Amino acid sequence: SRELFVLTYGALVAQLCKDYEKDEDVNTCLDRMGYAIGIRLIDDFLARSSVKRCRSYSETADMIAQVAFKMYLGVTPSVSCSSAAGNEFSLILDKNPLVDFVEELPAERASLCYCNLLCGVIRGALEMVHLAAEVTFLQDRLKGDAVTEIGITFLRKAEDRKHRRN
Amino acid sequence: SRELFVLTYGALVAQLCKDYEKDEDVNTCLDRMGYAIGIRLIDDFLARSSVKRCRSYSETADMIAQVAFKMYLGVTPSVSCSSAAGNEFSLILDKNPLVDFVEELPAERASLCYCNLLCGVIRGALEMVHLAAEVTFLQDRLKGDAVTEIGITFLRKAEDRKHRRN
Repeated sequence: SRELFVLTYGALVAQLCKDYEKDEDVNTCLDRMGYAIGIRLIDDFLARSSVKRCRSYSETADMIAQVAFKMYLGVTPSVSCSSAAGNEFSLILDKNPLVDFVEELPAERASLCYCNLLCGVIRGALEMVHLAAEVTFLQDRLKGDAVTEIGITFLRKAEDRKHRRN
Repeated sequence: SRELFVLTYGALVAQLCKDYEKDEDVNTCLDRMGYAIGIRLIDDFLARSSVKRCRSYSETADMIAQVAFKMYLGVTPSVSCSSAAGNEFSLILDKNPLVDFVEELPAERASLCYCNLLCGVIRGALEMVHLAAEVTFLQDRLKGDAVTEIGITFLRKAEDRKHRRN
């Protein structure tokens, strides 16, 4: 049962909104907290899921959606690749359990990325398997969008760049 | 999987420790947040558990331990009645999943009730079923005690007192 988690997460966001006036600061703080969680959660994930090493960005994105989201949030976002280069993906959530108790964002908090912790978690966990990525909310039902969409852009690795230069 | 919840709870406690210098203030804040969660969580609990009305404090304490703790934290504390009057109970936790990632409290946070949110949740939920109670940690493994013990003291209802006076 996730309700206690979802309500506790709400208490965390509310506390940060007390602490920081600017939405951007709350968003940054949630992302930073999520990152610290992600780098610890990855061990639990690898141990429980017993997944094998992913061979492509696409496989990695599917793993996040189908295994990790299912395991920790009980939902499975759909995945789409959004760049010809094959390094940008969208996770589309029809239902976001983290906002179950949130009706809407208050007018003065219009720029709040309520679930930004998740972006940090994904970024932190990916970093621990040596994948650098930018993770941000591209759409959010809390802001009136039709769906909630998390964008993951895998960044070319430093070694790749070095290799190309040589 | 509760790990994301447990780590998120840790982030909440860490944030409050940043916000408040005194452990007592962090404890109060966690209890207050828990109370706000409890008064919302009770609906979810009643809907999911489909439990019947408890007829005694003892039955209520058992319900909290065997149904609510199991449902939201995945553990079942043992219950003991600790007063002749039959209104004081202890929930004894051999294992507390909320502290899975906490090794020990830092020396400067020796008075922190790390899991105090739970006391507030129980107090809030009980109040919504018209039971006034004091809920506090009596022992805490994080503080070197052998077990973690949550004390629940049901307070005599105002009507009872009125009835007695008449």
